[in-house]
Amino acid sequence: EDLVDLADVERAAVARLPRDVRDFIAGGSGDEVTLAANRAALDGVGVVPRVLAGVEVADTGTSLVGTEAALPVAVAPMAYQCLAHPGGEVATAAAAGAAGVPFTVGTLSSRAVEEIAKTGATLWFQLYWLRDRGLVEELVARAEAAGCRALVITVDVPVMGRRRRDVRNGFSLPADVRAAHLSGGVTRAHERREVGSGVAEHTSTAFDPALGWRDVEWLRTRTRLPLVVKGVLDPRDATRCVELGASAVVVSNHGGRQLDGVVPSAVALPRVVEAVAGAGEVLFDSGVRGGVDVLRALALGATGVLLGRPVLWGLAVGGERGVARVLELLRAEFTQALLLAGCADVGAARGLATALTGPGAP
Amino acid sequence: EDLVDLADVERAAVARLPRDVRDFIAGGSGDEVTLAANRAALDGVGVVPRVLAGVEVADTGTSLVGTEAALPVAVAPMAYQCLAHPGGEVATAAAAGAAGVPFTVGTLSSRAVEEIAKTGATLWFQLYWLRDRGLVEELVARAEAAGCRALVITVDVPVMGRRRRDVRNGFSLPADVRAAHLSGGVTRAHERREVGSGVAEHTSTAFDPALGWRDVEWLRTRTRLPLVVKGVLDPRDATRCVELGASAVVVSNHGGRQLDGVVPSAVALPRVVEAVAGAGEVLFDSGVRGGVDVLRALALGATGVLLGRPVLWGLAVGGERGVARVLELLRAEFTQALLLAGCADVGAARGLATALTGPGAP
Amino acid sequence: EDLVDLADVERAAVARLPRDVRDFIAGGSGDEVTLAANRAALDGVGVVPRVLAGVEVADTGTSLVGTEAALPVAVAPMAYQCLAHPGGEVATAAAAGAAGVPFTVGTLSSRAVEEIAKTGATLWFQLYWLRDRGLVEELVARAEAAGCRALVITVDVPVMGRRRRDVRNGFSLPADVRAAHLSGGVTRAHERREVGSGVAEHTSTAFDPALGWRDVEWLRTRTRLPLVVKGVLDPRDATRCVELGASAVVVSNHGGRQLDGVVPSAVALPRVVEAVAGAGEVLFDSGVRGGVDVLRALALGATGVLLGRPVLWGLAVGGERGVARVLELLRAEFTQALLLAGCADVGAARGLATALTGPGAP
Amino acid sequence: EDLVDLADVERAAVARLPRDVRDFIAGGSGDEVTLAANRAALDGVGVVPRVLAGVEVADTGTSLVGTEAALPVAVAPMAYQCLAHPGGEVATAAAAGAAGVPFTVGTLSSRAVEEIAKTGATLWFQLYWLRDRGLVEELVARAEAAGCRALVITVDVPVMGRRRRDVRNGFSLPADVRAAHLSGGVTRAHERREVGSGVAEHTSTAFDPALGWRDVEWLRTRTRLPLVVKGVLDPRDATRCVELGASAVVVSNHGGRQLDGVVPSAVALPRVVEAVAGAGEVLFDSGVRGGVDVLRALALGATGVLLGRPVLWGLAVGGERGVARVLELLRAEFTQALLLAGCADVGAARGLATALTGPGAP
Ligand SMILES: Cc1cc2nc3c(=O)[nH]c(=O)nc-3n(C[C@H](O)[C@H](O)[C@H](O)COP(=O)(O)O)c2cc1C
Ligand SMILES: Cc1cc2nc3c(=O)[nH]c(=O)nc-3n(C[C@H](O)[C@H](O)[C@H](O)COP(=O)(O)O)c2cc1C
Ligand SMILES: Cc1cc2nc3c(=O)[nH]c(=O)nc-3n(C[C@H](O)[C@H](O)[C@H](O)COP(=O)(O)O)c2cc1C
Ligand SMILES: Cc1cc2nc3c(=O)[nH]c(=O)nc-3n(C[C@H](O)[C@H](O)[C@H](O)COP(=O)(O)O)c2cc1C
Repeated sequence: EDLVDLADVERAAVARLPRDVRDFIAGGSGDEVTLAANRAALDGVGVVPRVLAGVEVADTGTSLVGTEAALPVAVAPMAYQCLAHPGGEVATAAAAGAAGVPFTVGTLSSRAVEEIAKTGATLWFQLYWLRDRGLVEELVARAEAAGCRALVITVDVPVMGRRRRDVRNGFSLPADVRAAHLSGGVTRAHERREVGSGVAEHTSTAFDPALGWRDVEWLRTRTRLPLVVKGVLDPRDATRCVELGASAVVVSNHGGRQLDGVVPSAVALPRVVEAVAGAGEVLFDSGVRGGVDVLRALALGATGVLLGRPVLWGLAVGGERGVARVLELLRAEFTQALLLAGCADVGAARGLATALTGPGAP
Repeated sequence: EDLVDLADVERAAVARLPRDVRDFIAGGSGDEVTLAANRAALDGVGVVPRVLAGVEVADTGTSLVGTEAALPVAVAPMAYQCLAHPGGEVATAAAAGAAGVPFTVGTLSSRAVEEIAKTGATLWFQLYWLRDRGLVEELVARAEAAGCRALVITVDVPVMGRRRRDVRNGFSLPADVRAAHLSGGVTRAHERREVGSGVAEHTSTAFDPALGWRDVEWLRTRTRLPLVVKGVLDPRDATRCVELGASAVVVSNHGGRQLDGVVPSAVALPRVVEAVAGAGEVLFDSGVRGGVDVLRALALGATGVLLGRPVLWGLAVGGERGVARVLELLRAEFTQALLLAGCADVGAARGLATALTGPGAP
Repeated sequence: EDLVDLADVERAAVARLPRDVRDFIAGGSGDEVTLAANRAALDGVGVVPRVLAGVEVADTGTSLVGTEAALPVAVAPMAYQCLAHPGGEVATAAAAGAAGVPFTVGTLSSRAVEEIAKTGATLWFQLYWLRDRGLVEELVARAEAAGCRALVITVDVPVMGRRRRDVRNGFSLPADVRAAHLSGGVTRAHERREVGSGVAEHTSTAFDPALGWRDVEWLRTRTRLPLVVKGVLDPRDATRCVELGASAVVVSNHGGRQLDGVVPSAVALPRVVEAVAGAGEVLFDSGVRGGVDVLRALALGATGVLLGRPVLWGLAVGGERGVARVLELLRAEFTQALLLAGCADVGAARGLATALTGPGAP
Repeated sequence: EDLVDLADVERAAVARLPRDVRDFIAGGSGDEVTLAANRAALDGVGVVPRVLAGVEVADTGTSLVGTEAALPVAVAPMAYQCLAHPGGEVATAAAAGAAGVPFTVGTLSSRAVEEIAKTGATLWFQLYWLRDRGLVEELVARAEAAGCRALVITVDVPVMGRRRRDVRNGFSLPADVRAAHLSGGVTRAHERREVGSGVAEHTSTAFDPALGWRDVEWLRTRTRLPLVVKGVLDPRDATRCVELGASAVVVSNHGGRQLDGVVPSAVALPRVVEAVAGAGEVLFDSGVRGGVDVLRALALGATGVLLGRPVLWGLAVGGERGVARVLELLRAEFTQALLLAGCADVGAARGLATALTGPGAP
């Protein structure tokens, strides 16, 4: 096995996938300034490790939104995973389950939550705010019935960010990749055009951009599951989320796929952590590419991270085994990072100092 | 139509235009340090979006210097637009009018203000301070008579910045491009030389570098139109402008075409906004290349922006239709940016926080 | 002799060594972000020289941890030097001795400390915390008996950092390079595999990751030699080291070979200096490539520096003579740097101001 | 004449000169980090121009160390100008004189001060501190007799910085380029070797590195000429200079040719200006490449600047006419910069604000 780091996996996947699918996964919106800034900001987070802590074995286990997890990591919700591999979400979830990492089933999953649940993985369910409110209620019910352990409501997609790669590629879904939770599953996302993104077209038809605080309150009353609000960057919004009963927020710019030009996620993170002040959990995503990034996020105060694209690269390379490889690399890297930073466990990592040497340093 | 972003339009225009015209439009002065710094500074403005604002439709309309505008955008004054396309300012204004965006007629327009007015577009009139004061008075009178809604006095061109590309190209105006507001319209700008810019020669003959505060006061008494002072970077000058009765200042370094080595416009903007403190409007230009830049400027406190070169690239590519495409892309991008930033309207955008991660970060 | 600077020596060595050995020496861990950041941070330290100090001859001599040294420089502990040249540590030490620079014998030396001692060089002995505590005691005894003048305990290698170059190269020790202080000297480091580092395998077998404060206290009671704790980046750890009786700490990230993503060593240095506040010596390494870097470290408050890779490049190029060349270049550069900074001696250099213009500037 | 900016002149000169001479002029010491940082720091100084100042004609005239000058610029002392052109210092001075710019005769001039004086240019005389104190006295006497108007004592060359390009080129003076003020004029600088700089060899033989405060005091009593101390970067040294009676200091790192790794000159400048607080003049050099740089230096508080390498490039390209071209370009650029910054004169430029957006920004 010569996939030595996550970049190897990405390279292998990129070589294998058709161009439009590769672009759909890799791309960001607009000028992809935020996409690049996410990495630059993470690379500029210099962790200050501790020594002589007497740590023989580092315990990577933690609890995320009340769920036990083998790592402070969950698989981010990502749509249409059958694009990367016929096994789709079932393959990904199986690998996540084996690795002890929660898997987030998307509203736009290409496999149904009930099917995915059969893998035995710990599941969270991601909600997009559909115009069809009945369907939202139905999805919540299905998620609960399937044993999902948290509801992740994504709030940074009132409409889909303009991803120019998709527009130029005239990207649409192939016939065999379907939105399993939408009746029939064939949507405007399948309509091919010369220029323009089918996926974006579908989103604007199906999603309700008017999602507001009131809807979060409504959802809060509709389910006993812990609520996670994904896509928060302003500290004021973060505190309001936890005040309204959210268990966690995800500091995220959707991997640079929504509003281009927003603050890098790692620059926003410490400000949100400070504002939330322990009243809720603060998860982090956008740009995580290895175990050191998990440590960086923890050192900046995160409870844990969501892992996005690398999971899909693993899936593309080898289905369940490919995802397993990605998660195993991440586990090994993070375990070593804890040891090398003198941290016996995840909690200790949250006490590490950092020196910001990149963009956004104060 | 495969012009997916403003950079596509620029690429198409650059491929089409003769080298000296392309350089005249694209170029900056001196080492073009400021030209590049304008973009770097804008790219370093990380907007912090809001979520859950319940915005179904974002209202992009606003008022600029008392004029209703469909976007917080006006077309910047730009000389000799017939260089880019035979339709010149008439074509540009027609597209601007259709898009509901004010068009600024230049003193050095290659089509007369009366002709342009026939497009029905909302017009502003830009004044250069000509040595021939009678002509200035005449231009003000013509602008008023033609129904212009504001006078924009440009104060950063006591002489023309040394644009080395023009000097090397020996740039001069072709016979069929004329300064429509100057009697005859054939000027020293048409004199060709091996090395040296005809346009700069003409400027130094025609413009009065001694333009001062007194002249602004004089102008203020001569017209009922709102006065906009364009090319202000020092906060002390900005406050003095509004004290003397200007309705607005434009924070601008003339797109890096005047004094090279000056502060990037986006670095100057928040300092001017703070000093003016609401006593007048603060417009912004220099480097705006898309809807996200409009949002960035608003988040830094601007009332609106002027759009420069992209309009000329559109004009070069397709006359009125090309400009329409540019303004349509900008409208779509800005509308989406508002939605994605959780802003119901332009006012909300002015309340967004920013994280400065580029040059000039404090 | 046309090796004009240390970069020349590196180039010459890199051209001569087999790829896997070159990579073992040059490489860092992970994405090699810290490896690069170490240099960027040093290049961003602008020293503010003094003038008119009336310095005829600069005295480069100093005392390091109670040892007289001709320069504020010691050779860093580096494993398996026979990889670079058959003379190995004996050749390096001989050159160091001739240059009046302390040489640090490694636990993983490929020549025995007793043999090295015959060169007459001033020796320090570096300890790795072996699971076999008896062996640690034996090494301390051998070091003392051989006349070593300080014990350097390395605390940033509970396990070996994942150095991807070694993993990809399937790096293992050739049969003729042995760990002279480990009985037999043939270890798992000699086991070749397609992918994976033999050296790392050996480390995880032999080293005790649980090394803690208690062990430092124990060691402190076991020897009269001054104790140096190598690999400290957090100021809190540094003060604790000196409180427990260490004579010095080495601010080091192991040349970017342990935890990737940690703070650049030069960014950590002034913070540690401030915390230690003179209660112990503060040595520095990671990225030193010439006499100016020595001056930079002193100006940031270091007592002296350890020199790593450049010594091995010299060894590879010409054995003892090659190392001598490296140390002579360094001596000449540092002597000149002192003179040009108006410093009569090493102490004066510690009083120089700096202007931080690179990453990590406050 | 198609030399449109100083970079054109440099390009033309570089194409014309033999490699070793070109390298001697262009090169810096060490890794040339400071050489590059000087420019980066200047490019990062964003000037904030004023508007509406009513400036018809900008007055570029000023007084430098009691000498009237047509520009706030003097030609920096530069050794052996016959290397660039047979006319050498006489040609340079003639052009400077015609431009109304003081010319600094070097101790290592290749033409004698008496000869140079015949050009009628305003002269300053630069002193190196020779071991032969009698010769120093003689040079002071000759300088006074020849009508020099200031003595510039260079304090950043106790020994010559190691300029690796010269070392690699085995650079030595050709037989027809002589140190006109040293008896015979043939020195060790003429001794050719495979590797190593003849010029540096000569310096270490001839210069007294022990130059100290006492010597400045002694010099102060020996001449009625205003004293300028060149090569000061630490504010404490600057204030001491003026306390001892110096009329001015030159904030300079010798164009990156002495100690590599020192603070960029433009970063040091405002700190020195603040410390000197008007008690003496503060000149600036190292990296000035055009009229905008002169404005930047003034805005940072400098009294004026010294121009180095560009003058030699001009000399190489066309002797006196080449230098005249350089000074004419500089004059034109600076005049325009004043006008565009709304400054009626040099004094106004010193009141401009700056926004530091590059390295060393606070
Ligand atoms: C192909 C793809 C599809 C995605 N689909 C969704 C989705 O349906 N719902 C959602 O909340 N986020 C979605 N995301 C965003 C991820 O949840 C996550 O925020 C992002 O990928 C994190 O950045 P990273 O990829 O740099 O790790 C998607 C991301 C990608 C790359
Ligand atoms: C070709 C061209 C001609 C211009 N002519 C004028 C003019 O006549 N009057 C004026 O005030 N500004 C003029 N400008 C400056 C613009 O109004 C505006 O400040 C600048 O273009 C904004 O920068 P941007 O091009 O990066 O958007 C001109 C700019 C260009 C590119
Ligand atoms: C090939 C190699 C082997 C090393 N072996 C050891 C070692 O055995 N013990 C130790 O404490 N440090 C070891 N180090 C780290 C050095 O002591 C030192 O911290 C590092 O090389 C300094 O960075 P530099 O190489 O950039 O100067 C080694 C470094 C290299 C390059
Ligand atoms: C070829 C050359 C020779 C120089 N000779 C001297 C000298 O003899 N005395 C001196 O004080 N400075 C000397 N300098 C330094 C200049 O006076 C000045 O400080 C430096 O060139 C300014 O930087 P710039 O070249 O970037 O403008 C020399 C510089 C050059 C490039």
